[in-house]
Amino acid sequence: MRSWTLKPSEVLAPKDFEASAISVGLKQSGLDLALLVSTRPSFGAAMFTTNAVKAAPVQVSQRYLQINQGRIRAVIVNSGNANACTGPTGIVAAEAMASATANLLGIPVEQVLVCSTGVIGTTLPLERIITKTAQLKKSLSVTSLHAASEAILTTDTINKVCTAETLFGGTPVRITGMTKGAGMIHPQMATTLGFVLTDACITHDLLKKALSKANQGSYQRISVDGDTSTNDTLAIIANGGAGAPSINQPDKDYFHFVDGLTQVCQSLAQQIVRDGEGATKFVTIRVNGLRSEKQATRVARAIANSPLVKTAISGEDPNWGRILCAAGYAGVPFDANLVSIALGGLPVCLGGEAVIYNESHAQEILRQEEIELTIDFQAGSSNAIFWTCDLTKEYIHINADYRT
Amino acid sequence: MRSWTLKPSEVLAPKDFEASAISVGLKQSGLDLALLVSTRPSFGAAMFTTNAVKAAPVQVSQRYLQINQGRIRAVIVNSGNANACTGPTGIVAAEAMASATANLLGIPVEQVLVCSTGVIGTTLPLERIITKTAQLKKSLSVTSLHAASEAILTTDTINKVCTAETLFGGTPVRITGMTKGAGMIHPQMATTLGFVLTDACITHDLLKKALSKANQGSYQRISVDGDTSTNDTLAIIANGGAGAPSINQPDKDYFHFVDGLTQVCQSLAQQIVRDGEGATKFVTIRVNGLRSEKQATRVARAIANSPLVKTAISGEDPNWGRILCAAGYAGVPFDANLVSIALGGLPVCLGGEAVIYNESHAQEILRQEEIELTIDFQAGSSNAIFWTCDLTKEYIHINADYRT
Repeated sequence: MRSWTLKPSEVLAPKDFEASAISVGLKQSGLDLALLVSTRPSFGAAMFTTNAVKAAPVQVSQRYLQINQGRIRAVIVNSGNANACTGPTGIVAAEAMASATANLLGIPVEQVLVCSTGVIGTTLPLERIITKTAQLKKSLSVTSLHAASEAILTTDTINKVCTAETLFGGTPVRITGMTKGAGMIHPQMATTLGFVLTDACITHDLLKKALSKANQGSYQRISVDGDTSTNDTLAIIANGGAGAPSINQPDKDYFHFVDGLTQVCQSLAQQIVRDGEGATKFVTIRVNGLRSEKQATRVARAIANSPLVKTAISGEDPNWGRILCAAGYAGVPFDANLVSIALGGLPVCLGGEAVIYNESHAQEILRQEEIELTIDFQAGSSNAIFWTCDLTKEYIHINADYRT
Repeated sequence: MRSWTLKPSEVLAPKDFEASAISVGLKQSGLDLALLVSTRPSFGAAMFTTNAVKAAPVQVSQRYLQINQGRIRAVIVNSGNANACTGPTGIVAAEAMASATANLLGIPVEQVLVCSTGVIGTTLPLERIITKTAQLKKSLSVTSLHAASEAILTTDTINKVCTAETLFGGTPVRITGMTKGAGMIHPQMATTLGFVLTDACITHDLLKKALSKANQGSYQRISVDGDTSTNDTLAIIANGGAGAPSINQPDKDYFHFVDGLTQVCQSLAQQIVRDGEGATKFVTIRVNGLRSEKQATRVARAIANSPLVKTAISGEDPNWGRILCAAGYAGVPFDANLVSIALGGLPVCLGGEAVIYNESHAQEILRQEEIELTIDFQAGSSNAIFWTCDLTKEYIHINADYRT
């Protein structure tokens, strides 16, 4: 079986894509405006927040998607201001961002996706963006994807990128992604901002399906604090620039593409958790033996979101009772007397009761930066995996002092 | 209309009730075993956690309630050990606690409710309890309710009690309650432990209804960290000791009783939030103008549980965008352009957009220890109220270091 070569810290441009990033003063310092462009006609797909309060750029992008017949050529994105809860003024500003970008590139406005991230409820200083778009066009290049991946960050401490490479019919194909997010992270549709570019050739319908599938296996399985943002967007553009055979039916090639896209999205999603606000530990939660994947996912999510589980992990405390307790309020029925729990492979609970374990061994496991919790219910054959981080005083510090 | 006199820091015994509290070494220091007794036949009702993982004492008490025909005479409760996730051994231990108490008092075992709170997953040191029950009986008195209210505490920093007094047909009647809880607080059925004693005379059916009603208006409306415990229990015993006319139909007297009971439970529930782990601020959330009380409550709960809202309040940051964002992911549809938000009466958002407000005035409001958030949706005429606290570094400290 063909495989993908994954490069989790590289952001190599697929064929016929360019990017640029500049600083327009929306953040106190650093790059804060980015443009991603396919230099040839392309298809695109996107998924957005399920929050009832949708930021203006989300509303505008959703409208464009309804009329562009799957044609997406560019993404314009700013950080430092979310353009959310900004009323009709915000809508006008988002449209202006898209329209300035469209004029610059000579493409229809509805082929531009517009995204924002940052503080909610503050009017977007539109002139700072509009007056700099020419500069943005001038600096377009195939090597600027790294700069773009920096320009989309807010409280992130590191840029988050991934490139995957394979062959289709002997032709090299790339999928490259970048993402941002460290807080307000919760799996309800695409979480946070994520942009994926590929020079694979794929129909619009299959591209949409592939993105949904990859999203289910990646962004939907992470949690930092359980807050779903107003701006979440995960978008993909495919331009066929590689010259590889077209993917136009759900065949081996399609599933190979989905596999690569899922790997890229998983890498990006996991990089978000690793950079979770104040996080010191990366936690993999494996829920096994329930009656459906949906149930297993619900239980995994409840554990991943429990402040008591997350603080116990921060305190390196093998307090498995909190894990079982969180599972118990997920709304999934189970027999507590059949449950077993292991920390990093060390059984700490069997048949719903404590087992004698080597305390220093447990301490050693919990001192690691990567921790795996496995909880088995013996109620069925469905499993789920979830990724989260610990909850620390630093999270409070970051979020108590973010705006002021 | 008749009213109740509320004494939120007093725990005065209603007629024909006694209590006692001793130290048996389940906690590192202090009182940790309490007994509450009606000295005459009485009715009782109780509500328990909805967690799929129910502690042994919850399972045992629920079984007794099914066979005692509403007759409850005593509550035996220990702190320091939750007797949860302890398997069949835990069930035997809970039964032994009840049975030792029943023998002591000469009453049927199924008229004893048994409760535990503390660490999950550790075997209850049963002998320490069983061998001390005689001492527990010896120290029974009408003045020991205060000691009992201390003996049920765990991470609480203060005992939480309330007494309400009124007249029924000219006869003085009392409702007295005590509660515990500071973390693992979330409204799913009765939250944490709460015990209410009254010398009112009321039928078993109406007592059950009154408790359910009072619970809805109190314990169901608080949140500290969104974790629902394995041990939550709210119980009431009514013994008619006051000699007041019997309440045996849903008439004025019944509604007056419900009013008093709700006031006591609200006071107890609010005392829990005020003592929330690491909390420095008490927050009242008023959600107005939705299509149903259920919707309004859902939105209020989402705001109350949002780590980002709670850290903003901790940081005294008027970041109302986080409030609107949390409302948006509650699963209740609304038009963001109609929403207005006020902090302590100061409008900060109108029609979904920021309004210019006096920043120093906002700071002054947020510096207070009591903060009121009001959010109006203009979508209907239903309202809900909720109480929560801020999320601070001290919460992390307490929960990262609780067990070890």
